[in-house]
Amino acid sequence: MPLKHFNSGDIASMEQRYRASFINSLGGFKSAVMVGTINSTANTNLTIFNSLFHIGANPPLCGLIFRPDTVFRHTLENIMETGEYTINHFNQTIYQQAHQTSARYERSVSEFEATGLSPEFHDLLKAPYVQQSHLKFGMRMEERIDLKINGTILMIGRIAETFVPEECIGQDGFVDIEKAGTVTVSGLDSYHTTRKLSRLSYAKPDRPPELLK
Amino acid sequence: MPLKHFNSGDIASMEQRYRASFINSLGGFKSAVMVGTINSTANTNLTIFNSLFHIGANPPLCGLIFRPDTVFRHTLENIMETGEYTINHFNQTIYQQAHQTSARYERSVSEFEATGLSPEFHDLLKAPYVQQSHLKFGMRMEERIDLKINGTILMIGRIAETFVPEECIGQDGFVDIEKAGTVTVSGLDSYHTTRKLSRLSYAKPDRPPELLK
Repeated sequence: MPLKHFNSGDIASMEQRYRASFINSLGGFKSAVMVGTINSTANTNLTIFNSLFHIGANPPLCGLIFRPDTVFRHTLENIMETGEYTINHFNQTIYQQAHQTSARYERSVSEFEATGLSPEFHDLLKAPYVQQSHLKFGMRMEERIDLKINGTILMIGRIAETFVPEECIGQDGFVDIEKAGTVTVSGLDSYHTTRKLSRLSYAKPDRPPELLK
Repeated sequence: MPLKHFNSGDIASMEQRYRASFINSLGGFKSAVMVGTINSTANTNLTIFNSLFHIGANPPLCGLIFRPDTVFRHTLENIMETGEYTINHFNQTIYQQAHQTSARYERSVSEFEATGLSPEFHDLLKAPYVQQSHLKFGMRMEERIDLKINGTILMIGRIAETFVPEECIGQDGFVDIEKAGTVTVSGLDSYHTTRKLSRLSYAKPDRPPELLK
């Protein structure tokens, strides 16, 4: 494949939406999840995010990036108010509804109602889960870090509970999210299912990895 | 799918490697890339990461999480020394070699030589690219944020240049990384190719998204 070179000047001079699509594509396949929140007057909110990333397993921590001038604002306000949120994987049956949660609905509109997804409440947290999600977990806010470099916000949360399909949990703790139907996103708006190549054994310097089928 | 519930006590009492595999799976499909660096005495290093995430498009910024007590340490030392690194997507032809870069090689061993991947040098940066990678970009370190919550390090870098297959670049800036062969990872060690469902149109509150094939 012949590769085209872009320097920083080429990138800076791209039209704004073109650049957003281009730069978002470079990050590779990303986690696509819906974040559920509720405010103190019981208005629910649901928004798609593609910036979820793992920070650590013990304690179990994840990060999310918020751009405050966007639809993420309501989610951020609710988390700051309640300290809680849920993270919900989604499958190809509901990916169009998941994408639709990125529309700029009014503050008073719940994306659950607007998209036909069902809120599901459990005892531990007030924040709503997505009933149609096959893999979801509840988060408690741990730390907010404002990134001065571009005004975005890194929200670090701790996993407080999880709901995982029992048939997808392996002997070693691996969860087969492909079997659970979880989809992935590339760029800003391209959704993909997956096909497993293989799991690979823990890498050691003196031998190549083994395929763990 | 019947879901199994785990509370924070269940997670805390998991065996360490079981928990690492379990919690890493929850984050969804992740970007799998190799990070290339060089130190001041021209020793190259190459390490797989699955924590790349998008921070912003203008300026073009990405983040990576480093656990300092692991194979990521050499990469971190080289970035602190030179301020530069490269990010290289990989495809199914080289995913086993990419995984192998996570082995704990001695400081003096280059993962390029050890895995048979070829370093490729360009004018702008001293850091090596992976010749076999079809989509790669060069980074300049912008900010290091030490996350006190668990001792990991968030490295924020700015995209200084990119090499992208011309045939994968769409009219609107979207890069078809599936066409480029980029693979995705789940958990710690499971690699997957993808199959596109669809791109979806920019979401508006008053209508469902359209499929952009």
